[in-house]
Amino acid sequence: MEHASDILLSLFIVFVAAQIGAEIAQRLKLPGVVGEIAAGCVVGPSLLGWIQPSEALDVLAEIGVVLLLFSVGLETRLEDLQKVGRSAFLVGVLGVILPFVLGAGWAISAGFPINKSLFVAAAFVATSAGITARVLQQLDALQRIESRVILGAAVIDDILAMLLLGVVVSLQGGGDLEWRQLLFVLGGAVGFIAVVGFVGTRAMRKKSHWLEAPINPLSPLTIVLALCLGLAFLSTKFGLAAIIGAFLAGMLASETQQRESLEHQTQPLLALLTPFFFVLTGAKIELALLANADALLMLAVVTLIAIISKLGGGFLGALALGKRSALIVGVGMIPRGEVGVVIASLGLASGVFSPKMYAVIVAMSLLTAMMTPPVLAILLRRSAAD
Amino acid sequence: MEHASDILLSLFIVFVAAQIGAEIAQRLKLPGVVGEIAAGCVVGPSLLGWIQPSEALDVLAEIGVVLLLFSVGLETRLEDLQKVGRSAFLVGVLGVILPFVLGAGWAISAGFPINKSLFVAAAFVATSAGITARVLQQLDALQRIESRVILGAAVIDDILAMLLLGVVVSLQGGGDLEWRQLLFVLGGAVGFIAVVGFVGTRAMRKKSHWLEAPINPLSPLTIVLALCLGLAFLSTKFGLAAIIGAFLAGMLASETQQRESLEHQTQPLLALLTPFFFVLTGAKIELALLANADALLMLAVVTLIAIISKLGGGFLGALALGKRSALIVGVGMIPRGEVGVVIASLGLASGVFSPKMYAVIVAMSLLTAMMTPPVLAILLRRSAAD
Repeated sequence: MEHASDILLSLFIVFVAAQIGAEIAQRLKLPGVVGEIAAGCVVGPSLLGWIQPSEALDVLAEIGVVLLLFSVGLETRLEDLQKVGRSAFLVGVLGVILPFVLGAGWAISAGFPINKSLFVAAAFVATSAGITARVLQQLDALQRIESRVILGAAVIDDILAMLLLGVVVSLQGGGDLEWRQLLFVLGGAVGFIAVVGFVGTRAMRKKSHWLEAPINPLSPLTIVLALCLGLAFLSTKFGLAAIIGAFLAGMLASETQQRESLEHQTQPLLALLTPFFFVLTGAKIELALLANADALLMLAVVTLIAIISKLGGGFLGALALGKRSALIVGVGMIPRGEVGVVIASLGLASGVFSPKMYAVIVAMSLLTAMMTPPVLAILLRRSAAD
Repeated sequence: MEHASDILLSLFIVFVAAQIGAEIAQRLKLPGVVGEIAAGCVVGPSLLGWIQPSEALDVLAEIGVVLLLFSVGLETRLEDLQKVGRSAFLVGVLGVILPFVLGAGWAISAGFPINKSLFVAAAFVATSAGITARVLQQLDALQRIESRVILGAAVIDDILAMLLLGVVVSLQGGGDLEWRQLLFVLGGAVGFIAVVGFVGTRAMRKKSHWLEAPINPLSPLTIVLALCLGLAFLSTKFGLAAIIGAFLAGMLASETQQRESLEHQTQPLLALLTPFFFVLTGAKIELALLANADALLMLAVVTLIAIISKLGGGFLGALALGKRSALIVGVGMIPRGEVGVVIASLGLASGVFSPKMYAVIVAMSLLTAMMTPPVLAILLRRSAAD
């Protein structure tokens, strides 16, 4: 009984902190997510200590970001992504290569051995689509060409980041690279996305009346939510992030006749659950480990490299859209968010990262996540105003 | 990463099992919850073993039932409850006394010492409002007078059950009863409900324009969800079930101008989260411990006593409404659900219950939960048809 009480208190604190944070941020003309992440930092262990990350909160955060990407997919059509396929591909590839090369260069120059340096570099790579997607959604910018390029690139990025992580992890053991296995993994991931994307959307377009078959009055919603959870799970089985599967599920649902009511019904789900994702992102920042000049300097350098390399990759990849749009795409790719945190945790657990290095990489991931929304909002508003 | 994958698979299985179970039940003209509980029994550890109860699933189930009672509160007005106050009070009181007395009588006659018998009897007492509430809601019967009596009685029932549990737990130690402390607890719980119910509804009626103040376009919803989590937490602090606080929060929200849009927005939340509550209820049935004639006989006797005593108490308490309505009220009070499970767990943990007794009480709680919906549906349909 006491335990249920504690959990309810945590839920209440996370939810209210998110509302207050988002409200303050929006009154300051900043995107709401900035306030939610900052609120997490305030109520989390670093400052007030009112909430402690726990498995239950992590699961709620995971459901929150899965639903978020589902709803973003719901506003995205496969054919729209196909139109920007070339740019998205370039952004995805360059946005992986540049951060990896620059990250590895920094780590080697900082005195790490080569195989460890490559692991560190891997933490520079993966873009976290959740934060950018939320900003684009809240600014009603999901239909812009830059948004489509960003979302398409996020899928490519996730495939490449997964492969890269596979490579650097296998290098740590000192063993030989299993190229054949990597190709197999790549084939699986690309195949999964292709089958779901192409076959699934076609099936949905033709068979969406079937969603009305169950007795449940909320049936189209319940079926697509099941699809969302199922594809999120499957995509983890192909080594991809759960949000990729959720995004694909949303894209499938966007092909149905019930798309608009689904968009409508998804809003309350996002209102309840996405705050857990953003507040927990903020709560994981460990300020204490960074409270010395040495760590702060390292953090500044690492964050700068992370920003410049991703911005550069995205910008170059999207140059065909014009400089201004390419800048928006580049900025949109900057956040590392929870993916960087996961890689840093792997590094810490396997002994490759020191606790300080871990704290720096985590803080870099979250700093890039916090800095992107305001910049992106300014660029989008300026571009929309012209 | 592997872990996130496992969790997503559990979520998918629970959610899909609930949809399939509910669909089958409804095609058989049974309430959907019966199918969801049965589906939990099938995919749970007893049969297929596809899901294991875990903290994360428990938290989702808790959120599900909290939201459910919130939405039931949203369809309930304080003044409607006040009109049936006398009947609700009688139903609540008699529905606690009869099961307690009959339960204690059975336990004593079965050879338990008196203080243990009183603990066993306490497990017969508390009605779980969630299951009945869902059936009433799905049959569009929440505005009926019987539903109001049941909901009002559920609040009284929860207060009395809490006090009784306090008494029997303190008796186990062999110590003296702290009457003063119990009165203090009673005063706290009644005071909490009275203040929230009377002061809160009045404030809501006058100040509901204030819910529109935040920038967030989903603001009335987010504020009342915060209220729901906050009151659910507070009610556990007063020794009450979380769902009592959630129900009160819903009643407060029902006084606002935005009531209808709130009802609408709550539907997708229920669709996503209540299946976790019902499927987990089913998954906790441990069939293996009951697979012998001795345990089955005991279960049959215990379940029969649980049904007759609660039905009798509810029927007698509601007789002023006429026999047919009194029968509906009596049946509506029968489910013990998760409250019985919690008391049985306490009994097991403190060594008062043997594992067999524990399994029997848990199975009784869940059997009453499963048997009620079909009977209630039949009675309500018959009564509505006349």
